[in-house]
Amino acid sequence: MTQWVYAFGGGSADGDTSMKNLLGGKGANLAEMASLGLPVPPGVTLTAEVCTSYYDNNNTYPAELKSQLVQGLTQIEKLTGKVFGSVDNPLLVSVRSGARASMPGMMDTVLNLGLNDETVEGLAKLSGDRRFALDSYRRFITMYADVVMGVHHHTFDDILEQHKDNQGYVLDTELSADDWTKLIELYKEAVHDELGRDFPQDPKDQLWGAIDAVFGSWMNDRAIIYRRLNDIPAAWGTAVNVQAMVFGNMGETSATGVAFTRDPSTGANNYYGEFLINAQGEDVVAGIRTPQTLTKIAREEMGETAPSMEEAMPEVYAKLAATFDKLEAHYRDMQDIEFTVEEGKLWLLQTRTGKRTARAAMKIAVDMARSGQLTQEEAVMRVDPMSLDQLLHPTLDANAPRDIIAMGLPASPGAAIGEVVFNSDEAESLSKAGHKVILVRIETSPEDIHGMHAAEAIVTARGGMTSHAAVVARGMGTPCVSGAGEIRVNYEEQKFTVMGREIKKGDIVTVDGATGQVFAGSGDFTAIMGWADEIRTLSVRTNAETPADVQTAVDFGAEGIGLCRTEHMFFEADRLGYFREMILASDKKGREEALSKILPVQRNDFAAIFRIMEDRPCTIRLLDPPLHEFLPHTEADIENVASATGISTSELMARARDLHESNPMLGHRGCRLGISYPEIYEMQARAIFEAQKLVKDETGKMPIAEIMIPLVSSAKELEILKKAIEGVAADVGGVEYVVGTMIELPRAALRAGDIAQHAAFFSFGTNDLTQTTFGLSRDDAGKFLPDYVAQGIMEKDPFVTLDQEGVGDLIGIAKERGRAVRPDIKLGICGEHGGDPASIEFCHKQGLDYVSCSPYRVPIARLAAAQAAISNRSN
Amino acid sequence: MTQWVYAFGGGSADGDTSMKNLLGGKGANLAEMASLGLPVPPGVTLTAEVCTSYYDNNNTYPAELKSQLVQGLTQIEKLTGKVFGSVDNPLLVSVRSGARASMPGMMDTVLNLGLNDETVEGLAKLSGDRRFALDSYRRFITMYADVVMGVHHHTFDDILEQHKDNQGYVLDTELSADDWTKLIELYKEAVHDELGRDFPQDPKDQLWGAIDAVFGSWMNDRAIIYRRLNDIPAAWGTAVNVQAMVFGNMGETSATGVAFTRDPSTGANNYYGEFLINAQGEDVVAGIRTPQTLTKIAREEMGETAPSMEEAMPEVYAKLAATFDKLEAHYRDMQDIEFTVEEGKLWLLQTRTGKRTARAAMKIAVDMARSGQLTQEEAVMRVDPMSLDQLLHPTLDANAPRDIIAMGLPASPGAAIGEVVFNSDEAESLSKAGHKVILVRIETSPEDIHGMHAAEAIVTARGGMTSHAAVVARGMGTPCVSGAGEIRVNYEEQKFTVMGREIKKGDIVTVDGATGQVFAGSGDFTAIMGWADEIRTLSVRTNAETPADVQTAVDFGAEGIGLCRTEHMFFEADRLGYFREMILASDKKGREEALSKILPVQRNDFAAIFRIMEDRPCTIRLLDPPLHEFLPHTEADIENVASATGISTSELMARARDLHESNPMLGHRGCRLGISYPEIYEMQARAIFEAQKLVKDETGKMPIAEIMIPLVSSAKELEILKKAIEGVAADVGGVEYVVGTMIELPRAALRAGDIAQHAAFFSFGTNDLTQTTFGLSRDDAGKFLPDYVAQGIMEKDPFVTLDQEGVGDLIGIAKERGRAVRPDIKLGICGEHGGDPASIEFCHKQGLDYVSCSPYRVPIARLAAAQAAISNRSN
Repeated sequence: MTQWVYAFGGGSADGDTSMKNLLGGKGANLAEMASLGLPVPPGVTLTAEVCTSYYDNNNTYPAELKSQLVQGLTQIEKLTGKVFGSVDNPLLVSVRSGARASMPGMMDTVLNLGLNDETVEGLAKLSGDRRFALDSYRRFITMYADVVMGVHHHTFDDILEQHKDNQGYVLDTELSADDWTKLIELYKEAVHDELGRDFPQDPKDQLWGAIDAVFGSWMNDRAIIYRRLNDIPAAWGTAVNVQAMVFGNMGETSATGVAFTRDPSTGANNYYGEFLINAQGEDVVAGIRTPQTLTKIAREEMGETAPSMEEAMPEVYAKLAATFDKLEAHYRDMQDIEFTVEEGKLWLLQTRTGKRTARAAMKIAVDMARSGQLTQEEAVMRVDPMSLDQLLHPTLDANAPRDIIAMGLPASPGAAIGEVVFNSDEAESLSKAGHKVILVRIETSPEDIHGMHAAEAIVTARGGMTSHAAVVARGMGTPCVSGAGEIRVNYEEQKFTVMGREIKKGDIVTVDGATGQVFAGSGDFTAIMGWADEIRTLSVRTNAETPADVQTAVDFGAEGIGLCRTEHMFFEADRLGYFREMILASDKKGREEALSKILPVQRNDFAAIFRIMEDRPCTIRLLDPPLHEFLPHTEADIENVASATGISTSELMARARDLHESNPMLGHRGCRLGISYPEIYEMQARAIFEAQKLVKDETGKMPIAEIMIPLVSSAKELEILKKAIEGVAADVGGVEYVVGTMIELPRAALRAGDIAQHAAFFSFGTNDLTQTTFGLSRDDAGKFLPDYVAQGIMEKDPFVTLDQEGVGDLIGIAKERGRAVRPDIKLGICGEHGGDPASIEFCHKQGLDYVSCSPYRVPIARLAAAQAAISNRSN
Repeated sequence: MTQWVYAFGGGSADGDTSMKNLLGGKGANLAEMASLGLPVPPGVTLTAEVCTSYYDNNNTYPAELKSQLVQGLTQIEKLTGKVFGSVDNPLLVSVRSGARASMPGMMDTVLNLGLNDETVEGLAKLSGDRRFALDSYRRFITMYADVVMGVHHHTFDDILEQHKDNQGYVLDTELSADDWTKLIELYKEAVHDELGRDFPQDPKDQLWGAIDAVFGSWMNDRAIIYRRLNDIPAAWGTAVNVQAMVFGNMGETSATGVAFTRDPSTGANNYYGEFLINAQGEDVVAGIRTPQTLTKIAREEMGETAPSMEEAMPEVYAKLAATFDKLEAHYRDMQDIEFTVEEGKLWLLQTRTGKRTARAAMKIAVDMARSGQLTQEEAVMRVDPMSLDQLLHPTLDANAPRDIIAMGLPASPGAAIGEVVFNSDEAESLSKAGHKVILVRIETSPEDIHGMHAAEAIVTARGGMTSHAAVVARGMGTPCVSGAGEIRVNYEEQKFTVMGREIKKGDIVTVDGATGQVFAGSGDFTAIMGWADEIRTLSVRTNAETPADVQTAVDFGAEGIGLCRTEHMFFEADRLGYFREMILASDKKGREEALSKILPVQRNDFAAIFRIMEDRPCTIRLLDPPLHEFLPHTEADIENVASATGISTSELMARARDLHESNPMLGHRGCRLGISYPEIYEMQARAIFEAQKLVKDETGKMPIAEIMIPLVSSAKELEILKKAIEGVAADVGGVEYVVGTMIELPRAALRAGDIAQHAAFFSFGTNDLTQTTFGLSRDDAGKFLPDYVAQGIMEKDPFVTLDQEGVGDLIGIAKERGRAVRPDIKLGICGEHGGDPASIEFCHKQGLDYVSCSPYRVPIARLAAAQAAISNRSN
């Protein structure tokens, strides 16, 4: 017989934490805590399979559920010594959802269930507090009627407000027991008036109603939307927990609270949380009363006067602290805990792994590894690679320990990392170019508004909490440290000095607006990345072509360039003219003349890159986009180009028409240009080779050039173009290089065996490979991809996360066929998927040699590669 | 030691017909004939390997070649009793190329080699005809100087003309031996003047010079271009034949001629050819004298007076006829033969399988099968499927025997098949719409010129060989039968009657302008296609959607519709308006309203198709192209549509802009439209189902509908759309159908296993599959495909012949994965490759169930499918 109901409490449980899929997160952890001997109010969990069965069978329950639940209730009664529905000694329960994945606030909860006109009197007698009992009953009616019966809680709020007006009350606490008795009658009448039936008095009816409502809430609109947004399948279902009530609102020795075993914002190893004396959980949330701190230190730090729990309830606090340590040690991670104190006795209502900021995640992982609670590998697994993006960017000087360089006023909260700039105009222009900047000023004035808008954070040497900088930053929600008096800003030299150190324009700093700290580097980041680098087997390269980007990527740990897009160089103003001249030339001679003007410029471009990359390999892709992309499109542009080149507008437009394509993505581009206009690739190869020699003359070392031919669909294309490149190399003389190809067309993947005969490496261009494999234009997909994701046709945007089933299959085919012919062929990926953790794991599993991604994604890729290596260990 | 030289003659030979790759076609067949005991002038063949070696080794010959050639010459001397270079008894030879594949006229030939100032006297003595000897010598000088030495033959023509002018001669025959002697001196002087060296007198030098020239001609421009056009690899090389000269110009008992063992134009089983008495081969070609017929019957048929060979040389003719029979029986195919009669003795200079018209090929194959010379399968293999296209189209009434319906004057030669029309305007408009038409008029006038231009052939009831129709048709090169007096043309009723039969507009007739016959049907075609149908295992379907095309395809033997493109129906004027209304509607309700107007029209479209197709399956593809294709593009069109629909031009243009796509091929089309706008596919499904019921009510039989979803890339798309179709089917009720999909994206091929779970059939859309596999837009490829073919990157246009290595690999993958999940899944191909014989063979080898092609390609596909079955028999 299927077990539909799992019991917990009294030092043992049917389930444990490994059974999250069946019992939900809450139920599994309650069971685990009960087994650990921690004080958990006894209860039962109706499994997620009940939910699935309920929906599969037209909203009916399995036949055995009822008897199993009765049996479970009996056990709760035994453990609590109370009886469900008893007038003298009533057992009250909570009914709460609890799915496999946390869905905070999405589903329904009912507290105080079991109260009715009779049991409320029992509770009054038992607690010795009639007002408490009546308050609990009216809360129950409100919540149950709202959640289960569909009477909006405004109905009850209105009745309450009117009664308070009539009586001249302001606060709820002014209401007497008689007032509550009267209001309870009014509440019940309101239910009857609205629904035509009475509020249920039988606790069993109440219980089934609540269970129905919680299972039903799995399919409410909020829950459906939340699941869609968070990729949670509806088929998982939710469990339902029915648990004995404990009361934090039974007087001054009772309390309720929430806590984290560490600070979820900074990761600091301090207990963190808040509690309220004589309150139920909902009061903490409601925000009517200000919660108190948990620890004395926290109270002092925040300058609060209300006593901390450590001070107010030292004995219970000591038990709670011991529980924190026990739970963190048991779960080996920071815990998020709900607790209630009922007349001096501690009860735990929930524990779960706590959510945290990226910065906290890093710190907690490193701290726990350093204290021996975790291995370094486990620590590496604890940081979500994508959170590095949220953390903005790691520091340039990745080897520095956490390094506070200045302290000021915590003028506007939040943390940010970026490059230092000293001038608002520059802040704005760098920000537009994609940089993250920290604006550092002696003080700000209204003329700095545009720079402050552009900046990730603001630091001033002068000014208090009400200075211009502080006020404006808070208004913008931008982190700000003001009045950092030790720093000496030197606008002329674009630097500031502090305690003998110099921070120059472009240096990376972190600003913590909540603490007033400014620091360079993060020891946690350095540690995690260092461990990751030891573990990972995939190399990480970057897609970059400007010296600035190349330098950034190297600073972020890039081990090579995986994709240098040479056409980006042609778009710059000083050479676009020559390139257009080439396009507009009427014959090969004219093209060669124009190309000869571009040659020295490209040579310098490549030399600059080689100088930065030193002995790291550089994969340089020859011209890829169709020529029409380089021609002017608007009338004004056409006229400008016409007057600049002396070519008539009509001729320009004719050439543009001539080059127009129906499907440029599938058109005359990539190596097809190299076949049609060999002189273009020959010029580019020459620029590469001459740059190599130039840099070798300077440094004594030959730069490592890997020349990449794009859009190959057959071996013959590569063979012809490679031969041409070899001709140029022989002509230049004394260079070292290899030639390889992008695999970005399905046919290239299928013919990888032939192609590998001529290719030293394959770089999977997964952007275009995705477009052609799906027959899906990235530029046009926006019109229907939302429909596709909504209907579950695509789980993820295949341009963000690699489609392993389709595109990945082709990569596997290409790998096998390529390696069969050339076992040492180097394999990498240079589409945007190179910076996506799921795709990186796929690349690791496929045994590729490297991934290549944009500079700011390099740390993400390093971490994701390490996680992939750990997750896929064969032992 | 490699054998570089192969001898033949005197009843034996070193080689045989199987050695064409080594000896070339000419050399192999000369060897074969020699071994058969036929009279072949003895000779030797320098193999094609000599040619390859020559080019591989910087234009030098293998060391052993010289001695082997000397040995071969010695044997020729023995067999002829003449001596090469002998003054008294000179052996003369011809030097001719002979490659594996026939390359008529592309390479060089030298005749009469061995003559010089001394041997010419020996030849004169030996032949007793000094003038003949001198004539041969001057011919030799001209030919050798032109071919080998590079002195243009105009030089010699000019000298000859000037001499004739000086002497007052008109004809060459007026020149005396002395004249020739004088001219020979002038010729030799001209060579010396132009080249600074003498015409070679040593026969051995002459021989090597000629051999050099013939091998050299393998790489002349003509030969290179010819090979490129005919897909002949340069690596094959050519052989060179050195053969004893025989002379057809040694008087009235000598002759030369060419013959076919059957009529190469009609295929009739009559000897066919022409000959000239006292002439060399080149005279026949030069056309100075009119050749005589071979047979008496031919002479009588053509009304010639000059005696036929049968009459002029009965004994030699009898030997020749016996040789024809022997060669045809030996080679089991119609032969094309060159012969020379030297003083009453027959010599054979060449035999090869003769080229023939498509009609002749069919007739010869059928006749030889019926006479037991070939099996039916061999006969089927003898007809090139693509030649059916050249033959134009088979007759509508494919079961009719060859059926002469009229005779007239053979006014302009050539044969054609087409639909009868009676009016020049209609001939022109039908022709523009792709029809082949035969213009039938009582007589033509200058007002008919446009119709005559458009027509495949012209038939008139009145008029002679110099009538308007006859003169104009001959000028145009269009076949014409004039004065077909028995036919009675009735313009009013658009028909003609002849001998009690009625031929209506649109009926198919064949016109043979060479014989003056007009007939309907071809028994040979029927026979071959019948045999092909018995043999083939692939089904043949058609791509068609108009009732006219569907009817044509059925008449041509289509066994089903493989692709009915429903969007073609939307483009017709009466529904384009509604469809645009749907596109322009702002919401689903508006779209549904517009679609409801299209529904009855589509229902009628489908009903019309079902009526014609009867119990044949119809695969109907739901809407495929992007919506913007249906919107007006030009300003004028936009304004027309605006005024017709009441929608403003600005709104129209906005919607068009909104729908614009960068790469429409990869855009919002196919099933993606079905996902975004389910109402469109639902309307189409409803139209199909309602049409089925309509036709079932009429005929009592349920039409077989196969609904095809285009552009699927994942199983989920198909699952969702199939469910929607099932919903419509349930709503309509009582219909039978299956749902399947196009496989036209690489991802669909890769995910064929998943997709097969929902698909009753796969139809490979190889047009789009080729585009996406290559990343190659068909519309844009024209700019560089020529470069690609020229550089050998692509052997064939992959849109014409399926790329078996890439696209074919995906088809194989899809087949395996699809059949693994659904073993009985039906597989077909509906791209244009479905009508290409090489692609059809691929489909056969892959074990597909059917191919589908345009109506006029159905017979080609039937024949190609049979040939594929024969060629790929495992036993």
